[in-house]
Amino acid sequence: MPERHLNTPGPFDGLTFEEKQALYDTLSELYSDNKRQLFDRLVLNRTRHFAVVLEEIFQSHNASAVLRSCDCFGVQDVHVIEERNRYQPNPEVAMGSNKWVDWYKHPSITDAYDHLHRHGYQVIATLPHEKDTLIGDLDISRPTALVFGTELTGLSDEAIAHADGYVKIPMYGFTESFNISVCAALSLFSLTERMRKDPAIHWQLSPEEQTTLKLYWSLQVIKDGERVLQEIMDRRR
Amino acid sequence: MPERHLNTPGPFDGLTFEEKQALYDTLSELYSDNKRQLFDRLVLNRTRHFAVVLEEIFQSHNASAVLRSCDCFGVQDVHVIEERNRYQPNPEVAMGSNKWVDWYKHPSITDAYDHLHRHGYQVIATLPHEKDTLIGDLDISRPTALVFGTELTGLSDEAIAHADGYVKIPMYGFTESFNISVCAALSLFSLTERMRKDPAIHWQLSPEEQTTLKLYWSLQVIKDGERVLQEIMDRRR
Repeated sequence: MPERHLNTPGPFDGLTFEEKQALYDTLSELYSDNKRQLFDRLVLNRTRHFAVVLEEIFQSHNASAVLRSCDCFGVQDVHVIEERNRYQPNPEVAMGSNKWVDWYKHPSITDAYDHLHRHGYQVIATLPHEKDTLIGDLDISRPTALVFGTELTGLSDEAIAHADGYVKIPMYGFTESFNISVCAALSLFSLTERMRKDPAIHWQLSPEEQTTLKLYWSLQVIKDGERVLQEIMDRRR
Repeated sequence: MPERHLNTPGPFDGLTFEEKQALYDTLSELYSDNKRQLFDRLVLNRTRHFAVVLEEIFQSHNASAVLRSCDCFGVQDVHVIEERNRYQPNPEVAMGSNKWVDWYKHPSITDAYDHLHRHGYQVIATLPHEKDTLIGDLDISRPTALVFGTELTGLSDEAIAHADGYVKIPMYGFTESFNISVCAALSLFSLTERMRKDPAIHWQLSPEEQTTLKLYWSLQVIKDGERVLQEIMDRRR
């Protein structure tokens, strides 16, 4: 998925739900039935109940592994802080998952947290401290964004100070930390398993969000997708 | 932990439980109380109810990450197949966990499976196939060894054919596989969490196994541990 620009309109922003559905029917003519069935099936498992925030990941190897885990567990949105490190997904490690997950860039932790708070998320920092809540005990009734730090220094003071809560993975050995990609995979696995089993959590995307996402996915599999879309949109005007 | 040689006696093999306890008291005089307390605490969380089998891991980076996860979740035994690849833990990634986990080398899958079957394990291959049991549904009442394959080709036909069962991690996205180190961490996390909550599973090491393990750990923190041990043993004779 190309980066979603937060402050510039996306190509589908002005359309009604019905127009989006019609457009999806048109676009999906341009690829195989199998692919459309795959999109229709996978979109049902996507969620924005959880989101991921990556604070300045130095090794794009690790960031890409996190994208891959997000895709595997159906977590759609990844927020990347880019104060210093310019993040580009590593195609080998991401295994194409950067095509299917939305990622958003923010200039600072403050901007990212503000954005998430405005959208109703509690922001939870992952830390290995004694006092933290175990991941299995975190209250997930509210939408929750999980923040992961850098490999070298962990989360910044700012990322920790402004979080709404802290969570850790239970560990029983000499080693006191996990690799960031392992930490993210364990956290997302634990949280999404609980989410899918809890009938009180409305975690699925709305029908309109599902259609919008399938439009973005369509652009990924249509050759020259952006140009083709432009032509279709021009014809409709 | 140095490699455990399966067919040659270890330094503590001939001792009674009481002799091992006395030896642990002697050895632990040679390091700090803090360290002894750490050993006494962590050994209670160690288990041989689960074991890990790594089939020819090409990237020692990944194998070391698996050792680290084993240590974190208290899984004591790692079995490495070495038909072609010579495995040496990568110290940076293992974060020292290779000192605390036992690893055993086997010349072939058949040897490893035979060894595990003789010791009462069911051998379960991790595969991403449709028909496999989900990791959360695996019957773990019996001791269970989990087999992980290579990054490039997955498990060998032999490793699959001779397994007693198959298990997979639930995935909901486009990406159809996890990195091996992520796969191992997710599997061990899921299984050991269930194990620790199940009062019907006797997963802890026996008191004698605990003492033996603490003896091995002691050798890791005493300078010139092997020589010091030899001197103590000679004096006792």
